[in-house]
Amino acid sequence: MNCVLYTPAFCKTLVAGNYTIDCCMMVRKYFDDFVLEETRETYGRTITETDIVIHAGQTGDFFPHHMDAEWCKAQPFGQRMAHGTLIFSVAVGLTAGAINEVAMTYGYERLRFIKPVFIGDTITVKVTIKDLKDHKKPGFGLVTELVEAFNQRKETVMVCEHILLAQKK
Amino acid sequence: MNCVLYTPAFCKTLVAGNYTIDCCMMVRKYFDDFVLEETRETYGRTITETDIVIHAGQTGDFFPHHMDAEWCKAQPFGQRMAHGTLIFSVAVGLTAGAINEVAMTYGYERLRFIKPVFIGDTITVKVTIKDLKDHKKPGFGLVTELVEAFNQRKETVMVCEHILLAQKK
Amino acid sequence: MNCVLYTPAFCKTLVAGNYTIDCCMMVRKYFDDFVLEETRETYGRTITETDIVIHAGQTGDFFPHHMDAEWCKAQPFGQRMAHGTLIFSVAVGLTAGAINEVAMTYGYERLRFIKPVFIGDTITVKVTIKDLKDHKKPGFGLVTELVEAFNQRKETVMVCEHILLAQKK
Amino acid sequence: MNCVLYTPAFCKTLVAGNYTIDCCMMVRKYFDDFVLEETRETYGRTITETDIVIHAGQTGDFFPHHMDAEWCKAQPFGQRMAHGTLIFSVAVGLTAGAINEVAMTYGYERLRFIKPVFIGDTITVKVTIKDLKDHKKPGFGLVTELVEAFNQRKETVMVCEHILLAQKK
Amino acid sequence: MNCVLYTPAFCKTLVAGNYTIDCCMMVRKYFDDFVLEETRETYGRTITETDIVIHAGQTGDFFPHHMDAEWCKAQPFGQRMAHGTLIFSVAVGLTAGAINEVAMTYGYERLRFIKPVFIGDTITVKVTIKDLKDHKKPGFGLVTELVEAFNQRKETVMVCEHILLAQKK
Amino acid sequence: MNCVLYTPAFCKTLVAGNYTIDCCMMVRKYFDDFVLEETRETYGRTITETDIVIHAGQTGDFFPHHMDAEWCKAQPFGQRMAHGTLIFSVAVGLTAGAINEVAMTYGYERLRFIKPVFIGDTITVKVTIKDLKDHKKPGFGLVTELVEAFNQRKETVMVCEHILLAQKK
Repeated sequence: MNCVLYTPAFCKTLVAGNYTIDCCMMVRKYFDDFVLEETRETYGRTITETDIVIHAGQTGDFFPHHMDAEWCKAQPFGQRMAHGTLIFSVAVGLTAGAINEVAMTYGYERLRFIKPVFIGDTITVKVTIKDLKDHKKPGFGLVTELVEAFNQRKETVMVCEHILLAQKK
Repeated sequence: MNCVLYTPAFCKTLVAGNYTIDCCMMVRKYFDDFVLEETRETYGRTITETDIVIHAGQTGDFFPHHMDAEWCKAQPFGQRMAHGTLIFSVAVGLTAGAINEVAMTYGYERLRFIKPVFIGDTITVKVTIKDLKDHKKPGFGLVTELVEAFNQRKETVMVCEHILLAQKK
Repeated sequence: MNCVLYTPAFCKTLVAGNYTIDCCMMVRKYFDDFVLEETRETYGRTITETDIVIHAGQTGDFFPHHMDAEWCKAQPFGQRMAHGTLIFSVAVGLTAGAINEVAMTYGYERLRFIKPVFIGDTITVKVTIKDLKDHKKPGFGLVTELVEAFNQRKETVMVCEHILLAQKK
Repeated sequence: MNCVLYTPAFCKTLVAGNYTIDCCMMVRKYFDDFVLEETRETYGRTITETDIVIHAGQTGDFFPHHMDAEWCKAQPFGQRMAHGTLIFSVAVGLTAGAINEVAMTYGYERLRFIKPVFIGDTITVKVTIKDLKDHKKPGFGLVTELVEAFNQRKETVMVCEHILLAQKK
Repeated sequence: MNCVLYTPAFCKTLVAGNYTIDCCMMVRKYFDDFVLEETRETYGRTITETDIVIHAGQTGDFFPHHMDAEWCKAQPFGQRMAHGTLIFSVAVGLTAGAINEVAMTYGYERLRFIKPVFIGDTITVKVTIKDLKDHKKPGFGLVTELVEAFNQRKETVMVCEHILLAQKK
Repeated sequence: MNCVLYTPAFCKTLVAGNYTIDCCMMVRKYFDDFVLEETRETYGRTITETDIVIHAGQTGDFFPHHMDAEWCKAQPFGQRMAHGTLIFSVAVGLTAGAINEVAMTYGYERLRFIKPVFIGDTITVKVTIKDLKDHKKPGFGLVTELVEAFNQRKETVMVCEHILLAQKK
């Protein structure tokens, strides 16, 4: 569930038009509708010990970095950290808003884990449209979204590019 | 996550106004904004064996109706069924769309479990504004939403009334 | 949880033989057997961060009230709280003792969430028989149980009425 | 599971008043109260794919016997099976009835996994008091319970001895 | 998963003594030790309905592609599919063998989801060393592993490049 | 955990080529290969509140020793403790390294829970070969492994004997 704040002014106009504003599950945002530098932010998601334990159980990755608080005390980072795949999965989930009927995920590039995420850290995600270009297939274009995850100290913990294949109008 | 289908026409007008349509997390829907008989529907949520096992684990309710397929074969209903509290929790979760900054849940009334929900059934939820009346507290009103959960055969499985306490403009 | 059907006759012999009575899974408590103001209490159940994370995952309700510790710090309540549906589900699970072969849940009324439940709070539940009346169906009666959940400071966090449809002898 | 401390005195009054006895969480069953060959049985618990996936996640045991349906097809047993530790944990949980205030688990002996348990099998557990003998500590005795788990075809899947250290009156 | 540090010297003695080698948790594989086209494969991991339900709960991604069997029946793909992030997380977990003390994950590139993964599909992962080049930091090199996930019909479902930053001897 | 079958021959070539050995999932360790007093240790696994909550949910054991922090405060041990079956399951999982194709678990003996394990404790497990004797079946032998689990203060929390039935060469 992503988070766009509709300003009160905007809400008023929608309500004036007799539509109640609620949550959209399905939209149609064409390649032509995307705007460079357009940005949106999500709410925070606190990464809990539970998330790490469940993710270890889901993936089979029981490395002591995640599961052994005593071993971690003796390392430079000092405490258990979240799996990179956990932060990536949660970030993608946070940015998944409405289903865009005319676009689909093409892939991900340049996924980097910049800083560890520890138990109790809260991450927020910002998505910025960084590139728009035609796809070799006629009638389609590729949209590149820069996805940045930050912790509560505003430090970048993860980045990647999300590539969308979108229909043209 | 609730599911309102914005017609293509409506989406076009919003997009023309240079707003991208995504998911709202925060809105301001005042008591005055609610309209009787206004209705919305959610997507379906398939109730899985996993949901029942996890809910038993969460609540400690291990009654054989939910946990013992052999015992259930010998009963009129013939197979394991979901906990009522599971269906209620999932239905409430499905209908939770945007956070309405100017209203809050007052309570629930008349919660009835009409038909059992079995593994593999898919439920959808419909919400209808049924009543609007002043609250004794000045500047506030009570909104009654009728919440109906249906299975994939369109049979009603659960109903309740969700009472909201909403600010007046 | 073991499963022995203790008829009143059998219970009498156990008591006569000076055995303390272990756990019954199946009983027959008729409408006539319920007594007004009869009361029972449950043990405590500490509500953990794990419970909240699992419940969010079960229901899809990821509101920041439950999932974003930073956002919560900026609110009057200051910290993450449990979902109302979590407390309701856990309370119902705590009060589910033996299976009463001659009664079934008719529904719930007046479900109110009085105070938030925070991570680390321990809830106990008290059930009091508040009303007994005939049901329109001959041979059946309706039993109203007042269900009250308290935290470790004895504050009421949740109340509701549980209505049972019970056979008469 | 509700929680009322039923003293023998209280149980007597309930029985005298013709009430069927609900669930006791706390009892006092002294070494002297145990009787050889006394037996009790539990309800069934269907072992689901969910149980196996969750247990793998809890223990880190991702052996293909539990996690790889294709690999299992090529083995004599043909399908995924439950972890022995899962069956042992579930069996112990099923037999845990009331808390006996005057006894505690001393240990387990002769734990054998006789037959594999497959997804969809339902296990029931039978407990029989097999041995009673003094403990070297004065005022205490050792109770040996034979714990047998069966599947829905009445085949024994697991056995062990549960040793209790119980106070004498 | 047991944990013994096997130095090359120790491994040599074990092999000399005719012992088959058990599981290593910690190794030292330097940049110089990686060989182009070197390949390894994992066991299969059956993707279960439980995995999808748990992953939805972990990420908040409740799209009907994963959660609504009825909606899926009406789509070209016909049934519920796993989240891409689930397959990516499980694949990375499957390939995580011993902890290499002298290398770390640098990032991922070209992550593509080629075919959907459905409930009951079993995935295996193959890792091939595709590129070795110096890193701008002296004493370090970048190793590119091609990671390919296949289903039980040998169809490629996911690919990506895993970049490791490894110390030189 | 990756899965490569390393035959002794293959291991020899790897060692000859100066490669450190990664993780083996499948080995052949015959009865003749076991050596008395041979020992191995595992990494630590921090036992979290999440583990206890999930284990209660898996087994149905909701005793206040595990679930009620307030009740625990009034007991000598003062705080919630892990289920014995949780510690046993986790210990067995930790010691499960490679799959030994020529041996299988025969059973467990003398399982004792020596000290409680509290939330936040980290356990490590040590396995020592304690006994080797012929099995009545020709060509087979019984291997007794002493399994000891310790907490971070090096105190023994659990012991048992794991009996393996192993083929002779």
